[in-house]
Amino acid sequence: MIEEAIRNFKKGKPVLIYDYDDREGETDIAIPALNVKPKDVAMMRIDGGGLICVAISYEAAEKLGLPFMHEILEAASSKFSSLKNFVKKVPYDSRSSFSLWVNHVDTYTGVTDLDRSLTIRKIGEAVEKVLNGEDFDFANEFRSPGHVALLKAAERLLEERRGQTELSVALAKLAGITPAVAICEMLDEETGRALPKEKAMKYAEENGIPFVEGKELENYLKELNLALK
Amino acid sequence: MIEEAIRNFKKGKPVLIYDYDDREGETDIAIPALNVKPKDVAMMRIDGGGLICVAISYEAAEKLGLPFMHEILEAASSKFSSLKNFVKKVPYDSRSSFSLWVNHVDTYTGVTDLDRSLTIRKIGEAVEKVLNGEDFDFANEFRSPGHVALLKAAERLLEERRGQTELSVALAKLAGITPAVAICEMLDEETGRALPKEKAMKYAEENGIPFVEGKELENYLKELNLALK
Repeated sequence: MIEEAIRNFKKGKPVLIYDYDDREGETDIAIPALNVKPKDVAMMRIDGGGLICVAISYEAAEKLGLPFMHEILEAASSKFSSLKNFVKKVPYDSRSSFSLWVNHVDTYTGVTDLDRSLTIRKIGEAVEKVLNGEDFDFANEFRSPGHVALLKAAERLLEERRGQTELSVALAKLAGITPAVAICEMLDEETGRALPKEKAMKYAEENGIPFVEGKELENYLKELNLALK
Repeated sequence: MIEEAIRNFKKGKPVLIYDYDDREGETDIAIPALNVKPKDVAMMRIDGGGLICVAISYEAAEKLGLPFMHEILEAASSKFSSLKNFVKKVPYDSRSSFSLWVNHVDTYTGVTDLDRSLTIRKIGEAVEKVLNGEDFDFANEFRSPGHVALLKAAERLLEERRGQTELSVALAKLAGITPAVAICEMLDEETGRALPKEKAMKYAEENGIPFVEGKELENYLKELNLALK
């Protein structure tokens, strides 16, 4: 299934990524940011139901001047002492990968399918440009706070953190596309929990979307003897 | 319709709030935070589709030590210079009302219907306690970053800002309930824009939910000669 997932990413099409049974146990809808249209945002919010975020590589985030949110809160706590104790270990990992929430400056409210898809594509373009060595003034093109969350991947990707952020960026790198991927968690109305793996696999099959698991991706990298950075 | 909306809020039930034709032109599903169950989060994400946030009064936010996000970014920009130019005027108002994104410490991933409803109810309890004069250590009960956005109402409410945040907090105050209200924008898949007012009114009627407009709420306050704080 991993080759099919790589092919889809090369074409800018969706992939479902399941992390690990012993981690979040969660499936995300993942779509290359540069290709996200309004209908894709609608699909993510209706069929997924979680937060619509864009995972980008550590290198791109650094070049764009995007710190982790926990670092921002820590820096701001010198002025707002109430923020000092907010940042805590998350139950499934040592920290979250949230950076800023942003809107592209050409959006209106920022939350509609049209607005969020524009913001997501523009994030993709920003990552593409900055990784091509072009200058890019992120703060000039985006507002913050906004309605799309940026997720910053760990510097050493899966070797450092095995989250949805790292999995989707790793898949983008394997596919040789810009490492900016819109992701959204699939939720289950019936149980109030993450969509069970079996249901996510059924959805994938019915909609012709490749389904990959974190362990498959890791095994594939091992076989290739490839450490992605 | 406004009396019916007040009655629903007193009972902890949903109300649809439309802002103004000349502002966002947007309808939000609004539910008193203390009463939000997993099925309510599912309703907001499936029938609404926007971001699920909790609007709280300025007074409560101040007592809980919750600054606006734009203030946090500004404070952090002394360490991260890239943040300096992010905060810009939003197209429909002078600023957004976003504060922190949080998860209650008893959540796991934070994003499921069970987790988000727990976080929302716990925010309601925190607001209730702190307005009753009890001590409350917000940072001890919540993690940030998280999956539920806090919105901080303007200090002089509708006299200062006519946003969904202020409208929902004003309605809570009129109903005499804790000023902490979960809200979510209603989106339209067909057009990629906000759900048109007519469609939102039809949804309200079909589901037996009161529908109020910002101007009705303002007129009602004027008739009562009531300036809510």
